[in-house]
Amino acid sequence: MESPSGEPSVQRVLILGGGFAGINVAQQLEKRFKRFRNVEIAVINSENYFVFQPLLAEVVSGNIGLLDTVSPIRRLLKRARLYVREIDSIDLNQRTVTLTPGFRPRPDILHYDHLVLALGNVTDFRGIPGLPEHALPFKTLADAVHLRNHLLHALEEASIETDDDVRAGLLTFVVAGGGFSGVEVAAEMNDCLRRIAKQYRQIDPRAIRVILVHNGDQVLHRELGAGLSKYATDVLRKKGVELLLGRRLKTATRDAAILDDGQRILTRTLVSTVPSSPNPLIDSLDIPKDRGRLVVDRFLELSGHPQVWGLGDCALVPMASKGEFCPPTAQHAIRQANTVAQNIAASIMGGKRQAFNFKGLGKMGSVGHHSAVAELFNRFRISGFFAWIMWRTVYWSKLPGTARKIRVGAAWFLDLVVPPDTVELKLSQPGGVTQSHFEVGEIIFSQGDLGDAFYIILEGEAEIIIESGGASQIVAVLSAGEYFGELALLNNKRRSATVRCKTPMNVLSMRRADFNALTTNLPSLKQTFQQMKYSSSPRSSVPVKTDL
Amino acid sequence: MESPSGEPSVQRVLILGGGFAGINVAQQLEKRFKRFRNVEIAVINSENYFVFQPLLAEVVSGNIGLLDTVSPIRRLLKRARLYVREIDSIDLNQRTVTLTPGFRPRPDILHYDHLVLALGNVTDFRGIPGLPEHALPFKTLADAVHLRNHLLHALEEASIETDDDVRAGLLTFVVAGGGFSGVEVAAEMNDCLRRIAKQYRQIDPRAIRVILVHNGDQVLHRELGAGLSKYATDVLRKKGVELLLGRRLKTATRDAAILDDGQRILTRTLVSTVPSSPNPLIDSLDIPKDRGRLVVDRFLELSGHPQVWGLGDCALVPMASKGEFCPPTAQHAIRQANTVAQNIAASIMGGKRQAFNFKGLGKMGSVGHHSAVAELFNRFRISGFFAWIMWRTVYWSKLPGTARKIRVGAAWFLDLVVPPDTVELKLSQPGGVTQSHFEVGEIIFSQGDLGDAFYIILEGEAEIIIESGGASQIVAVLSAGEYFGELALLNNKRRSATVRCKTPMNVLSMRRADFNALTTNLPSLKQTFQQMKYSSSPRSSVPVKTDL
Repeated sequence: MESPSGEPSVQRVLILGGGFAGINVAQQLEKRFKRFRNVEIAVINSENYFVFQPLLAEVVSGNIGLLDTVSPIRRLLKRARLYVREIDSIDLNQRTVTLTPGFRPRPDILHYDHLVLALGNVTDFRGIPGLPEHALPFKTLADAVHLRNHLLHALEEASIETDDDVRAGLLTFVVAGGGFSGVEVAAEMNDCLRRIAKQYRQIDPRAIRVILVHNGDQVLHRELGAGLSKYATDVLRKKGVELLLGRRLKTATRDAAILDDGQRILTRTLVSTVPSSPNPLIDSLDIPKDRGRLVVDRFLELSGHPQVWGLGDCALVPMASKGEFCPPTAQHAIRQANTVAQNIAASIMGGKRQAFNFKGLGKMGSVGHHSAVAELFNRFRISGFFAWIMWRTVYWSKLPGTARKIRVGAAWFLDLVVPPDTVELKLSQPGGVTQSHFEVGEIIFSQGDLGDAFYIILEGEAEIIIESGGASQIVAVLSAGEYFGELALLNNKRRSATVRCKTPMNVLSMRRADFNALTTNLPSLKQTFQQMKYSSSPRSSVPVKTDL
Repeated sequence: MESPSGEPSVQRVLILGGGFAGINVAQQLEKRFKRFRNVEIAVINSENYFVFQPLLAEVVSGNIGLLDTVSPIRRLLKRARLYVREIDSIDLNQRTVTLTPGFRPRPDILHYDHLVLALGNVTDFRGIPGLPEHALPFKTLADAVHLRNHLLHALEEASIETDDDVRAGLLTFVVAGGGFSGVEVAAEMNDCLRRIAKQYRQIDPRAIRVILVHNGDQVLHRELGAGLSKYATDVLRKKGVELLLGRRLKTATRDAAILDDGQRILTRTLVSTVPSSPNPLIDSLDIPKDRGRLVVDRFLELSGHPQVWGLGDCALVPMASKGEFCPPTAQHAIRQANTVAQNIAASIMGGKRQAFNFKGLGKMGSVGHHSAVAELFNRFRISGFFAWIMWRTVYWSKLPGTARKIRVGAAWFLDLVVPPDTVELKLSQPGGVTQSHFEVGEIIFSQGDLGDAFYIILEGEAEIIIESGGASQIVAVLSAGEYFGELALLNNKRRSATVRCKTPMNVLSMRRADFNALTTNLPSLKQTFQQMKYSSSPRSSVPVKTDL
């Protein structure tokens, strides 16, 4: 570790990820190397803030402000350098990490001596058809803010919608997954929707349905065992959450959630907390993994890769008791961070390595306002109002920094004295090319609708139907690689036919404004669309297509 | 006004716009018709909240929370119905207003008996090349939130950028327009950037430049006269804002702001508060207008259109003193609203109409923390800390509702005791097809860059340059209707040539992900791009284009 001159060489510790695991490693290293300027610490995170996950559901309900559950990382770290970028790739042989470009389209490459992999897991909706396109994730701050705005938007639209089915869909809110995250978000949504709906005089509060779909017999069963999970289940029911237990989500479309028993729930709001996948960066590393997670020894080092450390949700960390592994919780991540920092220090300064050893203090979850469940030291179980007070107190005390504690305390106090905020913060339209999933019989658009998008079929078949004089007729069937909806856009007309799915379908769509910008300015492209129409497959080359 | 049965018929008052003017008309009507159920009041606004404009600049600096300057309209109105939609069109003959579609692509049509036009004005950047594409507006809550996030993003990138010019551009912040709005946003940006930059250890605070471009000799000269405007000008200078007076913005590009004297300021942040245009809906009405604003009589009714009323920033309202018109301020809008409500009541219930008569109480503006300027009753002029305390007190007392007063009061208090928040809230990428403006000599992309977008030329000419062995050669010139950048995307390669502007250029660009989604799934489109390349104009049909 020393250069020939006797001066120690600079050692660079690169920490990937700014969650509980990554931030705590950085903080512990800052403490341990306070007087050692030859150790550089850097954190790479895609956001400039740390998210205090346990309170994220309260952002959805508006009990706390939009930014009250996050802390600027620069405030938490005194000395470590922060790179706010996405990570493009990791090269364990070259000992480099490549960042995605910023304002200039050039990648940045960082070298490391020690690498800490604390990348957590990601929301991955692949595997259930329609989920990537139509379900709302609930993991990041942006997810929480987006979900809150979506709820308010649904209420706004429900208050002026005249079609009964559409209004029912707007007022039905489905959460899939009955773990801590799903239960908390369902409970908070339920509380806040029923509270806020009073301000919408055109909405009958009894028409609001909050549905939690869970594949077990009771929510939180896996996390808390029979007694507490029964309590949580009862509380949710009493508060008006509809529980669909022993069911799984099978498919999602623009208009509905479809369960494994065939039940079709009309909804415009589907929140899924179920599938959490390993970070694709971890996936891309050519090293041993177990269940998609990093295999580390009890010092949290990767086997075969000295000075590369793995912890948090992206690693499978062995517990002291043989054969067991750490659950993916904040309290474990924080203790793992201590171990990693200690072992990096030992590796740089010399000294004894520490094996990870922590049993967990307990588990807690809120089931909405004034109600929580907790299991302490794997022994005591409490529930109800007292558990809720404890839940708030514990998490409040864990909030990083005094500034954040004051802000959250103030927000909780304000929440008691002023009515809930119902501001829908519209920031920007999701633009570009988006994908949608439809099931058999669903209508993509109807004759007479305004032309708002252009569609390309990725999979499945669509029937083109014209209604005239009370009779309707299927005039064409389109399939993969074919497209529709362009002519209402090119000619600025209403849709002159209905498009219905003959099979389950996946389509790409492009908004009217983008389609028009492209075709207007690239005449050859416009010609292409006009020409392609006549060269498409025989099934669809009927004259009616010219009017879609 | 009475139906044959003697029961008064239902009268529907439709108010377009939820600013100071529209909300106050609705509130006044609710008061006046408290016991008359046969009068329906409805407000149409594109957001579900009212924005308290005077405090919007404090959202940018983070002195108050993101939502502290807005109030949910439903909380402000007890009885009026709210439609949160854009307005598609107004038909004064049929007495209808058409809303843009919500979840279903069908328009909604509302009928009215009385129409209140309180649509305000809009940001309109057309007229200055590059402004629509590259300048940030500052008018709505979304603008303020976006600007705040943009400032933080620029600091994040500056802290890791290695190119001197790019870093200088990231740390230079230009505001165009020295009226109240421009001065307030420049002052707040200056305060907050210098305060926040201390948290970025890689940024030298002295490298931060905040520049205010104004075409007069002193800021606020038109609004406040010589004495106060000199004070405001001096305060801004002392706080470190660079003032470029007697200058106008001529052009904006991705990398720079260019002034009328040819000065080119490298910047990635250009805020323009200058051009405010009449709402396009007002523009589209076939009625007399003056300077783009509605012509109304002293009862605020449109001539030739009984029961149609105009007020606020979209109307040219005559003052009692002949030949003068109301300035576009909140205090005038509120008094105009009283007049309109009174006259609608007179028209429905019978009674005397009221002519508008209000002289204004004064003018106030903040020039950053602890400093403000004010002119009261057209007579007294004050400035400095006392004016600032008055500025805060007056606006705080005008905040609608106790809840909002408590929240803003709490935010101001917290701002004294906890350090400023530096959370950059990334919500969604602006997607789809976007337009960019470039000036002569600017580089669109460089050889070796990552391929991140596809470009279509709308106007101007581009040189394609290949560097090889230290020499560079122009190998092609492309012009309007031609495109470039597709092959690096189709083949997933680095850019193999540089594209430089031979003339000023306007280009459309489409992000890599969208381009790939389209071409991958529509093979005929991919073929089109590959074919078009060989059929484009002779100037560009050189072999090198195949590698762009």
